[in-house]
Parts: sequence; C-alpha cells; structure tokens
Amino acid sequence: MAKPTPLSGFPEFLPADRVVEQQVLATLARTFELHGFGNIETRAVEPMDQLLRKGETSKEVYVLKRLQEGPNDQGLEKALDKGMGLHFDLTVPFARYVLENAGKLEFPFRRYQIQKVWRGERPQEGRFREFTQADIDIVGRDVLPFHHDVEVARVMVEALSGLDFLPGFTLQVNNRKLIQGFYTGLGASDIDKVMQLIDKLDKLPVDKVRELLISDAGLDEKQADLCLQLATIASEDASFVDDVRALGVSDQLLEEGLTELAAVIEGCKPFTSDTVKVVADLKIARGLDYYTGTVFETRLTGFESLGSICSGGRYDALASDGKSTYPGVGISLGVSRLLVPLVQKGVLTGSRVVPSAVLVALTDEESRPAADAIAQQLRANGVPTEVAAKPDKFGKQIRYAERRGIPFVLFARVAEDGTTTHEAKDIRSGEQVSIDPATWTPPAADLRPQVVMKEQHS
Amino acid sequence: MAKPTPLSGFPEFLPADRVVEQQVLATLARTFELHGFGNIETRAVEPMDQLLRKGETSKEVYVLKRLQEGPNDQGLEKALDKGMGLHFDLTVPFARYVLENAGKLEFPFRRYQIQKVWRGERPQEGRFREFTQADIDIVGRDVLPFHHDVEVARVMVEALSGLDFLPGFTLQVNNRKLIQGFYTGLGASDIDKVMQLIDKLDKLPVDKVRELLISDAGLDEKQADLCLQLATIASEDASFVDDVRALGVSDQLLEEGLTELAAVIEGCKPFTSDTVKVVADLKIARGLDYYTGTVFETRLTGFESLGSICSGGRYDALASDGKSTYPGVGISLGVSRLLVPLVQKGVLTGSRVVPSAVLVALTDEESRPAADAIAQQLRANGVPTEVAAKPDKFGKQIRYAERRGIPFVLFARVAEDGTTTHEAKDIRSGEQVSIDPATWTPPAADLRPQVVMKEQHS
Repeated sequence: MAKPTPLSGFPEFLPADRVVEQQVLATLARTFELHGFGNIETRAVEPMDQLLRKGETSKEVYVLKRLQEGPNDQGLEKALDKGMGLHFDLTVPFARYVLENAGKLEFPFRRYQIQKVWRGERPQEGRFREFTQADIDIVGRDVLPFHHDVEVARVMVEALSGLDFLPGFTLQVNNRKLIQGFYTGLGASDIDKVMQLIDKLDKLPVDKVRELLISDAGLDEKQADLCLQLATIASEDASFVDDVRALGVSDQLLEEGLTELAAVIEGCKPFTSDTVKVVADLKIARGLDYYTGTVFETRLTGFESLGSICSGGRYDALASDGKSTYPGVGISLGVSRLLVPLVQKGVLTGSRVVPSAVLVALTDEESRPAADAIAQQLRANGVPTEVAAKPDKFGKQIRYAERRGIPFVLFARVAEDGTTTHEAKDIRSGEQVSIDPATWTPPAADLRPQVVMKEQHS
Repeated sequence: MAKPTPLSGFPEFLPADRVVEQQVLATLARTFELHGFGNIETRAVEPMDQLLRKGETSKEVYVLKRLQEGPNDQGLEKALDKGMGLHFDLTVPFARYVLENAGKLEFPFRRYQIQKVWRGERPQEGRFREFTQADIDIVGRDVLPFHHDVEVARVMVEALSGLDFLPGFTLQVNNRKLIQGFYTGLGASDIDKVMQLIDKLDKLPVDKVRELLISDAGLDEKQADLCLQLATIASEDASFVDDVRALGVSDQLLEEGLTELAAVIEGCKPFTSDTVKVVADLKIARGLDYYTGTVFETRLTGFESLGSICSGGRYDALASDGKSTYPGVGISLGVSRLLVPLVQKGVLTGSRVVPSAVLVALTDEESRPAADAIAQQLRANGVPTEVAAKPDKFGKQIRYAERRGIPFVLFARVAEDGTTTHEAKDIRSGEQVSIDPATWTPPAADLRPQVVMKEQHS
C-alpha cells in the first residue's frame, strides 16, 4: 500500500499536538460543569428535511447512503426526502434533542456539547470539512429570562480565559433589538436589508456600504450616515449607551436592546483583564436570522484573520412543538478553527509525545516481570509509566526516553548481597536520586504532558 | 414541528445516563494513559477503496456524498472509486494514520482511540448503526515483541476492572498459532475451513459441527473428534497446556502458541479476582482473518447474550508501505454495546441530571449579583454550582434542586444589623449548617454525579 496522503479539509493531529486539544477540551468541560452545564452527545446524522430547513447551509450537507442500497435502487431525491445527512452544526441536533426529550428534561436546561461537525464546503484557511465545536446553550420552556444571556457570556469568557496558553481575546457583543430598534426609530423600511449591508463593513469600504444603504435599502443620506455612525460605536463599559443616545434616535426596542447590552457588558466586567476584553461593538450583526437579542463574536488577539472563533446569541424560538416554544441563548466555540492554525503555525504543541512520565529501564528480558511490578506501583500512585521495550544498553534506553520526552528513567540496582535499590534519573538535568517505587512520584508538573509554545520547547 | 422520534440504531443518552458514559470513558482514558498509551483521533471518513479492502464489512459502509454535487453529475460508482465513506471500525483508520505519519511516530507506538464508528447494518439488540468504541493498540515497525500481547491484555483487564459499577467479566484468550498448529499437526489440509467450522460451535450443535468437519473440511472421524476436544479445553491457569498435550498432537507452531497463550494467562493473573477472570478458552477463534497469534473476546457476567464486548488480538501486518511492515496487537471495547443495554434495562444511571452540587437560592431578582458572586466563590474551589433561575419561594427552590438531584441548597440570611450569613442545607437529610462560601465544599462524594444502580436510586 502506498503512503496515504492527508485529505484536504480533514485535519488530524499528531500525538503531541493532540495533547493540546485534549487539554483544551478538558478545561472547557471543567468550566462548563462548574457552572452546572451537563454534557450530551447527539448522533452524527439528522434527517435531511431538518438539515435543509436553513437555506444557506443546504449546499454544504454531506448526504449518507448505505452502500448495500446499490447504485440504482435509490436516487438522491429519495435520500433528500427520507434520507440522512451529517450535522453541520450542533444547534440543529440540539433543537431536535430538546423537542424529542422535552418531557424528560428539566428547564432551564443547561447543556454543553463537544462534537465533530461536517460541512462539504471548499477547504480554506480556518475552514474545514470536519471540525470540532464546543457549544453551550441554556434553553427554557416558553420563557427564558434575560439574565441567562449574561450567564452564557460569563461562562464562555471564563472558559476561554482558562486556556492560559492562548493569546488574549475579545468577546464582541451586540444586540439585535438595539440595532433593529435603531433602524426602525430612524424610519428605515427594510430593516433586514440595512442589517445585511452593515454586516458587510468588514468586507466593503464604508463609502460603498453607504452607497448601498441608499440605493438598496432605500435610506436617505442622513439615515445612512446614522446607521454608519451607530456601527462605529464600541466600548468596554456601558458608555456606548450615551454614544447611541447622542445620535438622537428613539425607539422602545432600541431602549430594550441598550439595557440588555449594558447588562451583558457590566455582567462580564469581573471576568475581564488586560488580555481578556468584553466590548459592546455595535457593528456586530451575525448573518443568521434566528437571533433575536444578544449576539456574540470573538476575535483572538494577533489572529484576527481567523475570523470569529466563538459566536452565538439569543434565539427566542430554538424549537417549537406546537404546544411549547423553547427559547434559548448559546455560544459555540470553533475548537478546530482555534487550534488547527495555532498547531500548524507551530505556536502550540504538547511537551511530550506519550503520556508516560517515567520509563522503567530493563536490565535483561528476564527482569521484565520485576520491571512490570515496579511500573504498577507507580501507576497505583497515578504516575503514567511504561517499561522499556527492549533491554538495550542504558544509554540507548535513555535516548528512547528522550525521543519521547519522558522526563524520568527508573533503574534497579542489585547489590552484591542481592538486595535491590531503585534510582530515578531526571534525564533533563542528569540528576539521579534513590527512590522507593512504592511512594515516589515525579513533581506534579511532570505528571502529565503540558501545553507548551513550540519556540520555547527545545 | 412535530415531536421527532428516535432513529433506530442511533442510540442517544439523556443527561443522567450520559453521566455513566462520561465516567466510563474517563476511567478508561485514565487507565490507558497510566500505561503510556497516548490519545489520537482520526477523521470520520476514509477513502472507499480502503474501507472496501475487507470484503465482509463492505455492505455496511455509509457512503458520503456532497449535496451540492447534484443528483446526476456523479454516480455511486464514482463515489466508490474516489469517494469517501464513514469508518466502520478504528483499526482501518489507525492503520492508515500509522502509514501516513510513520516518519513522525516513535515505535513501539501505543495509542488509544475513543470514537464513534458507523455501520449501515440492520439494528438489533447490541448492534447499532452508530456506536462508540475504545481501542488500544501497540504497533511496532517491522518487529513487535510478544510481551506486548501480554501488555494489552493486562491494560484492558485493568481498565475494565476500574469500572467498578459493572458486573464481573471474563476475558477469553486463545492463540491462532495454537489452533492452526494443532490442525496442521493432526493432518488437516484446509486449516481455515476447520477454524471457521469450530467458530460455529456457539451457533450449531456439536454433532452438526462434527458432521461438517468431516464433510466440508475433509477430516476423518478421529481428526474431527480431536478438533472438537481441543475446543472444549479451558482453564484459568496454564493447566490447559497439559490438556492439549494429552491429545497427542505435536507441531512446532502449536508449541509456540501454547507458550504464548500460557504467558498471557500467567501475565494477567495479578489482575484477576472473584469477578474478573482471564481464561484460556480454546474455542475462541475470531472471524477476521488478519489475526496471527493471540486472540481475545470478553463476556460480561450475566449479560452473555450481548456477545463479546471487547475483542482483538495480534496481527503481524496491520499495515505495510513496501519499506516496512507494522505488526500490532490491540483490543477494542464496544462502549455502546456495553452501556446502551445496561442503561436501557435500568441497571445504571447517573445520580443527578446536572453537574451542579449546589444551588444558590435567590431571595429576589435584585440579589442575583450577590448570589452570582457566592456561586463564583464555590466554583473557584471546584464546586459545580448554579444559581436559582427565579426568586421563587424557598420551598419551590428546594423542589427545583430535588428534581435535578442537586444535593445542597445555599441560603443567604441578612440579619437585622445588615450582616449576611450563609447556610447550606443538605436537602436529602434536611440538615442545615452555617458555612463560609469562601471555604466550604460539599463532601467529595457529592462533588460530581455518581454512577448508581437505578434500583438503588430513589
């Protein structure tokens, strides 16, 4: 078999890099659980009719076909009608899960979900065909008080802050009520069109957007300028409220939005720092039309070209079954979008390629059972340990450990009187000390592989 | 939208049941890492030509098609030729990963992999279309010493033993060299045929198998009886060796197999107990033809009808790239096959439906920031905590905690002089004590949801 080549858009990690992903996922899960979010997993597939409800993503769905159906006995039309496809996000499956199990869930239902999703789009930087997302959502039955908007923002900010090997980040928050109320208040007739055009400010020059606001959204020059001025407003505190009021537009929905957005910004204050910022940024709109209040995007400092790594918002009707509607608020972290570039660019890796903190050296093949017993003693104390694969010369066994990044090698010494003593060698410093395998453990920092900056890791 | 119904063959867990799966996976991962197995994940898809190399499973592969390819511009034939399908096990992807990254891996390479796999087969008890497997393998370059066979057996036995809420289990071990050598030694000409027929002993009566050994495998009556006698031999120690020798068949491969099998059984001895058994069972053959030495199956005590929950063995050529071959030995645990029936039959569930150990009660909506601050103090000490969704009457807030299984409710009491004190109520016992939120934590056993027998959980 020829050497296989990677599939474009399907990133995979080498063992040392997977260490980074494991630690990121563990830190996220720990923070989410500390806040009472329970974990669920949903199946990878959903019925096509569910996946195709959102027009925009329909072209990206991977359709599933059983091979044994044969090439001709079922057309793609039938697959579309009754078939299944791979989920392209975790929101559609979650909405279905909530409806399917509503009678067995307690509301408000806080859940986190960390799974792969698939999109059959053309791979490009930061865009993959298979990638991991980590979502948190809080869903209510019929009602979901606004304070949960503040809660999900705080939880995700705390979770991202826990990834202390990351550069800083900025959570950008806006509110649909605010911008929709503003556009209504200044007399715009096609609110959605205005929002779509303002959303293009990061791609088109301001003058061009202004032109389109007039030609396509039917605004006059003064209205267009006010919309553009609104989009320039940003602040790390509630001062944006006065800036908006200074524009002289009034509307009840606008007022609601201002109050909500100020509450999110103030509520996240205790979680901010020099590197962790939460800003009211009034140009953020989010393309998807199901958001109805708070909206979130997140930029990684120094890696702004990745786009938003973490997005979400409030949706007043995640799902509905006729009897009840289920409003929700959530944020989704693009784990692969965040990590794959950092790993590929060599920013992050794991400190070693195996979990083992200790290699038990082997004098000869006959002493393997004794070495296995020593290893078991260490494992019983929580020390990841492996036994040398072969009874090579000790220098070779040390190089074996070095190549894997294993920090300690354990040697047994049999004295002339037949008693055995054990020594642990820190192969980084060369220091060698007598130890009792029944009680000795390496320093806590050496127990598990650490996430390190590759440049700092020799 | 109408209430969705479950998809047959795609099991999903409710939050309390997912607790069971989370703890199982965490325990397995911990054990694997203690033994130096590093984690990897491979993409869900593989090229169809790789997936179809094993004839037996070809009918079960789910083929992937991008929706945007349109119904007619690419036939299934092309998908088969150049397309992709979902992996049906973790061995095929692992073999591909090893070949693709051989230059960047250290051998022997120990890895564990816990992922979903997909098979488009008809769902039935213990058979799913989507299910989770946990695989460990050790792979060498060109050579892999036999002692690794003992190692993987020990690691999996220790991992399964760590799931202390499971009933007992029996790891059944056999060796292909032993049975092939035996059949050769007694003069059988079609070794594979004999092995296939002996493998049917759990489905067909002995007489029928005997008949087929004579009619289909060309054995004489004495040879057929010897084969059947071999298959009845089983022992929890190395005494099976004498039982085999007593049959009077001699062959060099047989001797090798006897030595290896005895070594696995003896090597696992320290890990056995009243409920954890490792037996040499000479009727175990494993259908798949890539095994070349040790083979494993595992039965769960009291749930034998599930079939083998954990299977594997030695394969002398997991992969080959022309320059090197990569021999390996591994075992695969069917996590879903094990857990889905235990959860559905009501044997196991989680002790609560949320991670929260504490609910901070709310006097009124104005005190939410104070309650949030208390909750953050608890979380900083590792206590999963949520704040009441609404300032209901305290009785209602306690019932809110009860429904979720949250063991403690925290109340703030404001004295007449304005000072605030805090009390923690264990809602199971009703006991209420004064606490300092900056230092108080619930008992360790209450910090996380536990796996419990449903019958014992009121």
